Amino acid sequence: MVLSQIVGCIAAFFNAVTFVPQVCKTWKTKSAGDVSIQMFIISTTNASLWSIYGIGINDPIVYTVNTIVFLLSVSQIILKVKYDRANKK
Amino acid sequence: MVLSQIVGCIAAFFNAVTFVPQVCKTWKTKSAGDVSIQMFIISTTNASLWSIYGIGINDPIVYTVNTIVFLLSVSQIILKVKYDRANKK
Repeated sequence: MVLSQIVGCIAAFFNAVTFVPQVCKTWKTKSAGDVSIQMFIISTTNASLWSIYGIGINDPIVYTVNTIVFLLSVSQIILKVKYDRANKK
Repeated sequence: MVLSQIVGCIAAFFNAVTFVPQVCKTWKTKSAGDVSIQMFIISTTNASLWSIYGIGINDPIVYTVNTIVFLLSVSQIILKVKYDRANKK
């Protein structure tokens, strides 16, 4: 139980921060032409399902991490749509 | 138990396919300048930890999905390094 909690916390941390570098890079460079929007649509769907599941089983680690991933994925989609339009002009 | 298995299978499917669109896009466009390599380094680390954990607890869903994610992340890193170098010339 202790080992699975440690692994869960490490995995939760990595899951939460995975998309941070991509959002930061897109924010800085104002360009996301090479980034796949489908990847972030899948990730948004996945994170929202997990958030609902986490609330359902009342597990704060599951819903907190997945809410962070959901928000980062939505941010990336918004940034990509915004900069793709701006860069096409 | 049945519900958690269903959710686990749906999540496993989404996790396994998340990076497929990005690898396909990079493969087709031969360009990944806007893609964050740090994102895929984090994801490679995470997937390898989960694969080891999955083998440890003998859960084929955990280690199969994470081996797929690991291979896709490594492929994306190789493609990014290759095309970034080629596009700099």
